[in-house]
Amino acid sequence: MQVDGIAYRTIWPAADGRAVEIIDQTKLPHRFETVRLETVDAAAHAIRAMLVRGAPLIGATAAYGLWLALRSDPSDVGLDAAAEKLVATRPTAINLRWAVDAVVQEVRPRDTGARAEAAFAKAGAISDEDVAINRAIGEHGLELFKRAYAEKGGQGPLNVLTHCNAGWLATVDWGTALAPIYMAHDAGIPVHVWVDETRPRNQGAALTSWELGRHGVPHKVIVDNTGGLLMQRGLVDLCITGTDRTSANGDVCNKIGTYLKALAAQDNGVPFYVALPGPTIDWTLDDGTRIPIEERDRREVTHLTGQTDDGRIETVRVTPPDAEAANYGFDVTPARLVTGLITERGVAAASHAGLAGLYPERACTAAE
Amino acid sequence: MQVDGIAYRTIWPAADGRAVEIIDQTKLPHRFETVRLETVDAAAHAIRAMLVRGAPLIGATAAYGLWLALRSDPSDVGLDAAAEKLVATRPTAINLRWAVDAVVQEVRPRDTGARAEAAFAKAGAISDEDVAINRAIGEHGLELFKRAYAEKGGQGPLNVLTHCNAGWLATVDWGTALAPIYMAHDAGIPVHVWVDETRPRNQGAALTSWELGRHGVPHKVIVDNTGGLLMQRGLVDLCITGTDRTSANGDVCNKIGTYLKALAAQDNGVPFYVALPGPTIDWTLDDGTRIPIEERDRREVTHLTGQTDDGRIETVRVTPPDAEAANYGFDVTPARLVTGLITERGVAAASHAGLAGLYPERACTAAE
Repeated sequence: MQVDGIAYRTIWPAADGRAVEIIDQTKLPHRFETVRLETVDAAAHAIRAMLVRGAPLIGATAAYGLWLALRSDPSDVGLDAAAEKLVATRPTAINLRWAVDAVVQEVRPRDTGARAEAAFAKAGAISDEDVAINRAIGEHGLELFKRAYAEKGGQGPLNVLTHCNAGWLATVDWGTALAPIYMAHDAGIPVHVWVDETRPRNQGAALTSWELGRHGVPHKVIVDNTGGLLMQRGLVDLCITGTDRTSANGDVCNKIGTYLKALAAQDNGVPFYVALPGPTIDWTLDDGTRIPIEERDRREVTHLTGQTDDGRIETVRVTPPDAEAANYGFDVTPARLVTGLITERGVAAASHAGLAGLYPERACTAAE
Repeated sequence: MQVDGIAYRTIWPAADGRAVEIIDQTKLPHRFETVRLETVDAAAHAIRAMLVRGAPLIGATAAYGLWLALRSDPSDVGLDAAAEKLVATRPTAINLRWAVDAVVQEVRPRDTGARAEAAFAKAGAISDEDVAINRAIGEHGLELFKRAYAEKGGQGPLNVLTHCNAGWLATVDWGTALAPIYMAHDAGIPVHVWVDETRPRNQGAALTSWELGRHGVPHKVIVDNTGGLLMQRGLVDLCITGTDRTSANGDVCNKIGTYLKALAAQDNGVPFYVALPGPTIDWTLDDGTRIPIEERDRREVTHLTGQTDDGRIETVRVTPPDAEAANYGFDVTPARLVTGLITERGVAAASHAGLAGLYPERACTAAE
């Protein structure tokens, strides 16, 4: 998408062919900076420290990370060590493992001399496939938005609530949950987005607001506590979020707090959609409540980083100095609370039958 | 309660008899500072700028504010102007209006020369009554905590989730929702409190964590998004919050986000209690969804204040500079989601019948 009039993806091979470049998303919304990744350790750090985040972008970064590793050690030992290192960076991210496995399967049969080049090509193909998938998600979602707008009698705004950042910054381009929003906006539907700030890392306040603002989509940032009231008062027409991992029965593991919004949506008759690329479905899991929940650094809860009015970046503590904290990364929204799953193949009910209808080949594999 | 070994209330007459003193709660948890209020404008500012907050403390501050006003102008015009000024500071706070009305009724029949002294005495009586009410709430709540602990087989910890600050800092002493927690802790029940940080003003992270820490109650600060996951995983035994205003049918208007936790509690079979002093019940209202919701400064959403590691207080922006925001102060938790209302007279069902059983004299008045 556009940044100051220049088209960007979130990850791309450097012009000199010796690195892959990314946007350092920890600096947004205050600084727009790109970073060169030249080693697998740099790629692993970028994932772990969340310079890149979002399931599809994490997958693409890991794929390029294997290319970086194989340039210096293309042996089986080197391949396995790099794969293990990359998968360990974010244990909850199913898409990360999928991308790493895809590259490993592509390169292992080859001579060591050909492995790096094959990994590079596969990482590029994974990136291009993500863009195509997200464009298709956007088109299927657009139909839902058009219907919702028609149900309002063509009276705007069409109020959409989203949580975290499932925008183009979380993917290679377009985004998942935000793809239909961009397409609806471009199609002339007067979309207005309620942007959950999404504590503790504020991906909504920092990233979703930034990218919607750059594209000109009207939106307001709200604290995560607000969505329930907005739905009680009829100020939300639909909710849409992304997901890090979806179980085969349609349970959605996404950023902590998603479940609370889904409960409020159900209580107020507001449709709750989840946008997801097929590869984030975990066909081996038929109960999302078994997904292990990542615990992260407590300092993300007790401390916040932002910009002062005179332009300095400062990190401040909001709790007493001796306060303990707990920091869970995700929660699980049960399938019963999800109105529909928007995928690149169309919109499915959040159920095994719904997903199997769109992905018969995967559902069969899982059942074997 | 105790601060560094000294017993404090949150509001008290100055030793020189010329002012009332408060704790500046906007400075907590980083600085413990007291402030002298010498005029009604200072009292109104303290309420509006939230140097004092919490329904009972706002009421007590307004009551003393009338005393400060009547010292310089004890006329009917002066009394009415001061009352109007104080009530306008926080339109959602029913307790504020109640306290102002109580003082006005006390002083209006008197000669102007006796009004200030009568207001001072009434403000003191209102303060003492609040302390007695909260102690009684704590004792009734303690019985529920003892039962919950027995149901766990006497195995700790007893995990309690609370939202915002309904502690002694929100009252004159003891607190409402935290009173049972203090009493359970003192009675040897191994209470552990999940403290919602409570964006946008972080009353949980800043105040609840501070006062629990000073008293030695084990607790962890969590972001507001976390409670749903904790309840899904069996890590919350009960929820307890305060309320700014309760309608006669048991709907609870409290800090934004309370409703989301009540939905999660219901979805996971976790009891959800609300602690309230009788005066916060609005007997004129039989439907909480009609309560007007205060919109506050958007800067509370886009900016945060805290302390840097080297001790400076800084305010930082977490959104893009051009981001719009919306800031609603409260939401309404419908009575159907509330397990019980803990009052100074005992525990009632969240219904008109439940409340009328405890307050027959008020329910009759309202019905007339």
